[in-house]
Amino acid sequence: MTSTPLFIQMHPADNVAIVVNDGGLPAGTVMPDGLTLVDRVPQGHKVALTPIAQGQAVRRYNVPIGYALQDIPAGAWVHERLLHMPPARSLDNLPQATAPAWNAEPLTGYTFEGYRNADGTVGTRNILAITTTVQCVAGVVDFAVKRIKAELLPRYPNVDDVVGLEHTYGCGVAIDAPDAVIPIRTLRHLSQNPNFGGEVLVVSLGCEKLQPERLFPAGSIAIQSIAACVINTRATGQFDTNNEAAPDVVCLQAEQHVGFMSMVDSILHSADKHLKRLNARRRETVPASALVVGVQCGGSDAFSGVTANPAVGFCTDLLVRAGATVMFSETTEVRDAIDQMTARATSPEIAQAMAREMAWYDAYLSRGSADRSANTTPGNKAGGLSNIVEKAMGSIIKSGSAPISGVLAPGESLRGQGITQGLVYAATPASDFICGTLQLAAGMTLHVFTTGRGTPYGLAACPVIKVATRSDLARRWHDLMDINAGRIADGEASIADVGWELFHLMLDVASGRKKTWAEHWQLHNALVLFNPAPIT
Amino acid sequence: MTSTPLFIQMHPADNVAIVVNDGGLPAGTVMPDGLTLVDRVPQGHKVALTPIAQGQAVRRYNVPIGYALQDIPAGAWVHERLLHMPPARSLDNLPQATAPAWNAEPLTGYTFEGYRNADGTVGTRNILAITTTVQCVAGVVDFAVKRIKAELLPRYPNVDDVVGLEHTYGCGVAIDAPDAVIPIRTLRHLSQNPNFGGEVLVVSLGCEKLQPERLFPAGSIAIQSIAACVINTRATGQFDTNNEAAPDVVCLQAEQHVGFMSMVDSILHSADKHLKRLNARRRETVPASALVVGVQCGGSDAFSGVTANPAVGFCTDLLVRAGATVMFSETTEVRDAIDQMTARATSPEIAQAMAREMAWYDAYLSRGSADRSANTTPGNKAGGLSNIVEKAMGSIIKSGSAPISGVLAPGESLRGQGITQGLVYAATPASDFICGTLQLAAGMTLHVFTTGRGTPYGLAACPVIKVATRSDLARRWHDLMDINAGRIADGEASIADVGWELFHLMLDVASGRKKTWAEHWQLHNALVLFNPAPIT
Repeated sequence: MTSTPLFIQMHPADNVAIVVNDGGLPAGTVMPDGLTLVDRVPQGHKVALTPIAQGQAVRRYNVPIGYALQDIPAGAWVHERLLHMPPARSLDNLPQATAPAWNAEPLTGYTFEGYRNADGTVGTRNILAITTTVQCVAGVVDFAVKRIKAELLPRYPNVDDVVGLEHTYGCGVAIDAPDAVIPIRTLRHLSQNPNFGGEVLVVSLGCEKLQPERLFPAGSIAIQSIAACVINTRATGQFDTNNEAAPDVVCLQAEQHVGFMSMVDSILHSADKHLKRLNARRRETVPASALVVGVQCGGSDAFSGVTANPAVGFCTDLLVRAGATVMFSETTEVRDAIDQMTARATSPEIAQAMAREMAWYDAYLSRGSADRSANTTPGNKAGGLSNIVEKAMGSIIKSGSAPISGVLAPGESLRGQGITQGLVYAATPASDFICGTLQLAAGMTLHVFTTGRGTPYGLAACPVIKVATRSDLARRWHDLMDINAGRIADGEASIADVGWELFHLMLDVASGRKKTWAEHWQLHNALVLFNPAPIT
Repeated sequence: MTSTPLFIQMHPADNVAIVVNDGGLPAGTVMPDGLTLVDRVPQGHKVALTPIAQGQAVRRYNVPIGYALQDIPAGAWVHERLLHMPPARSLDNLPQATAPAWNAEPLTGYTFEGYRNADGTVGTRNILAITTTVQCVAGVVDFAVKRIKAELLPRYPNVDDVVGLEHTYGCGVAIDAPDAVIPIRTLRHLSQNPNFGGEVLVVSLGCEKLQPERLFPAGSIAIQSIAACVINTRATGQFDTNNEAAPDVVCLQAEQHVGFMSMVDSILHSADKHLKRLNARRRETVPASALVVGVQCGGSDAFSGVTANPAVGFCTDLLVRAGATVMFSETTEVRDAIDQMTARATSPEIAQAMAREMAWYDAYLSRGSADRSANTTPGNKAGGLSNIVEKAMGSIIKSGSAPISGVLAPGESLRGQGITQGLVYAATPASDFICGTLQLAAGMTLHVFTTGRGTPYGLAACPVIKVATRSDLARRWHDLMDINAGRIADGEASIADVGWELFHLMLDVASGRKKTWAEHWQLHNALVLFNPAPIT
C-alpha cells in the first residue's frame, strides 16, 4: 500500500494513466511529475496526462480506447461519459501471422505430480463424474451423489470427489437447429475431461432428445461396459445393449427400475465399478508440459490489465515455454484486439480461424440486437473501465506474448483437434461460467481466474486459482484470493515476480500439494452451457 | 390392466385409434369390433380403422394430424413415417371469443388450509427464498443455505424449507437487448411467489449487470429493511442505503465483508430476521378459489391425451368453477390448436394476446432456424405421438373446457396483470423446467404434471403432483407418481373419477396434509430461466 499519489501509464504514447491509490485522489493533488488533478479521480480510473481536444483519441495500451466528446484538460478524470467508443475493427484485411518470430528459450526441468490417463492426458484431480443427458434426472442424481459420498467414497481414499455434471440442456430444445452442435459437443467433451480418468458414467432419463447415442456417437468414447438404456426396444430399437463400444448408461425409464430407490441403486452400482478403477490411479511425476491451463478474468477493473493479467500473461509465456497448453478465451474481450491476435497467429489458417470465430459471434450478437459493447458491467465501469475497448486491451494481456498456435470453436476439445501444446484461442462467451464450462470441455485441468471487483467463483471439476488485481481486495478477501497481484501496483513486486509465484503455485496445486481457497470452502458454481439455438 | 385387445378412438370421425394393451398387439390380432391388425402395433400407437388413401387426412381428436404419404390399409400401424405434417395454421383471421357461453355451475364449499399473505395471495408452503442477482454468488449461497438449515431452521418449526433461487443469469449477458426483459422480470416475480410469504432476501455480488435496483425498480416490491449493497458509492453512488423502499440485500463485495465467513454470517443474519417473520405464519382455512395451479405435461405419450390430460382438464374445470386460477402453458404445444383457443377467449383482446404470443414464438424459433416441429422427442415418438400436431391436441386437453380469461407473456405475474381467478394462458416454452420456472414466477402455488414416459420432476418452491398416463408406469414408479390416470384406459375409472381424485388431492397437498412423492424424496430440479437474448 502506498500513500504517495501514484498513477500508472501503460505505454509512453498514452495520454491517460490510472490512479493507484486506495480511495482515489482528491482534486488538487499534485502528482510526483508535477501534474495537478483538476477532479477527484477514483482508484483505478483514468486521469488525462495532457490536454485532450474534442475528437482526439484517448490512448491507453497505445491503442485508441475512445475519442473525446469534449475538450478534456490535463489532470481531469477521464470517465466513460467523456468518450465516444470507436466501432469494431473490420474483419477484412487482417494481418495474418506477421508478428516477428518468438525466440523465447524452452523452459525445462519443471514437473508436477499428476494422474496419467490412457489417452495421454494428465489429470490434476481424481474425480468420478456422472454425466447427465438431461436436466430431468438431476434430482435423482443429486440424491445418488449424496449416497455415493456417504456410502462409497470412504472406501476409495484415492478418489477426491464425486460430481454430477448437471445442466439445463437435453430436452425442450431445438436439437436439430444448426447451433445445437455447441451444447451437445460441450457435454460430450466435458465427460472426457482428464480429471475424470476416462471413466464415463451416464444417467439418462430415456425419452429425452439428447439420447445417449446422440451424445456419444459410435467411436466418440473409450469402450466401457454397458448397463441398459432402452427407450422402447420393441417400438424403435433405439439402443443396442450388445454394443460394447458404448458408455456405461443408467436409464431411469428402463423397465428394470421398479421404485425410486432402484434407480438410485443402479447409479450406485455403476458408480462403484468406476470408483474402483479411479481408486487405483496414482499420482506420478510428469513434466510441466502436461498441464492444460485455462485463463479467464471476471469482475474486472482497471487494475486487471495492469497487475493480475500481465502477471498471468508472464506465466502464460512460462507455460508455453515449458511445452504446456494454455487457453485464453472470451470472444467479446478479444474482438477489439483481433488485429494483434491474428498477427500473432502461427499461420494464416490460424489467423483465419480466429477471425471466423469473431465473425460468428458478431452475427450471433446481432441476431439478438446486441453487439460487443453489451459486455461491460456496472462493476467494470465503477472500477474504471470505460468501455469494451479498454476492457479488451486489459483482458488479452493474459495471453502473454507467445504465438497463437491453435483455435477451438465453442465446445470443441483440444484432443479432438489434435492439440497437445501451445497457446490456444478457445472461443467462448466472456460469461464466467460459460467460459469455465467450455474450457473444461476443451480439456482444462487447472483454471486461473483474475478479478478486480472480487468473485467467489469455483468449479467442481478442476481447481481454480484466483488472482486479485488489488491489494485491498486481497486483504479483505484473504481467504478467497489465492494470489495478490496488487503488490505490482504497490511497487512491492514485479510482474515477473508474481508471474513466477503463480507458476510455482500452479505446479503445487496441480500436484495436490496445495488446495485453492475455492476447494477449501468447496465453492462450486454451476456448469453453464452455451446454447445459441432456440428452446422449444 | 386388460388382456382383451383394446383400442381407444377419441372422436367418432377419427380414422385411427390407439392400442391400449401393455406391450402392444401382434399382427393378426382380431379386435372386438372385428378389425384384424395387419402389423404389430406398439402400445399407445395408432392403428388405421379404415383404409386411408395416399394424401388423405389422418384424423385424431377430429383434427387432421397429418396426411398419408402412401395408401394405408385398415389394421395397419400408422406411425410418423407414414404421415406428412400439415403446416401451422395462419395467425390471421382467427376466431375471436366465438365459443358458446360456458354455463358451468359455480363450485362452492371447498376449502384448504393455506398461508394468507398481506397482498391477498395464499401460499401452500412456508419457505424462505434467497434471491440471487447473479450466478457468481451461488457457491456462497449454497454454503449459507447449509448453515441456515443446520443452525437456524430447527428454531423455526413453522418454516418448511430454505431455498436458494439460483440461476445462470445476471452477468455475461446482453442485459439491454430487447428480450432481456423476460429473464429479469422472471427473477423479480419468482422472489414474490406466494409461498415465500412476502419476505425478500437478496444476495448480490456487487459488480454484476443485474444490479439489485435493476431487479427491483422502485415500487416493484414491498418495503423491507435494508442491509447495504454498495458497488462503489464514491465512484458511482449506485445504491442508496437510505432508501427504505428496497429489499433486504446482502452484497458480497461490500466493504464491510472481511473474509469469506463474514459474507456467510451476513446472509445468516438477514435470514434469521426473515425466518422469525415466516415462523409466525399460520395456516388458516381459505376457499379453494385461493389456489393458483399450473398444469404441465412432460415425457408425453399417446395416452397423455387420453387419460391424464383429460383428467387434468376435468379438474381444471372444477377449479375454475371454484373460482381458482389455473395456468396452462407450452406455446409449441398450443400452436396447432390456436384456433380452438382463440375461440374460447373471453374477449377479442384475450384472443389477440394469445395470437401475439404464438407469433412471437414463431419468430423466435425461426431466428434460430427451427419451428414448432422441433418440440417432439424420441420418447414422444416411441410412445406413439407422431408429430407436434398430435402432441398438441393431447396437450391442450389439460385446459379443460372453461373460457380463457387471461394471458401472460413469459415471466409476467398474475398479480402484476391484475388476474385473481380463471383460466389463464401463461405463454412459456414447453421445456419442463422453463415452463415450471415461469409458472412459479407467475405465482403458482401448486403444480400438476402429467407424464407418460415417466420423469422424477420436482420443484423446491412448490409441490408438484405427478399424474401417470399409464398403469404400467404408475406400478413401476409407485413411489414417484402421485396419481394413476392409466385406470381410465384400463376401464377401471372414468375421467371424472380421476379428475375429482386429483381435485381432492390438490386440496390435501395445498393444505400440507399430504406430501407429494417429489417432496418426500426432496427431488428438486433447477430453476431454468428463459433468456432469448444473447450471452456476452
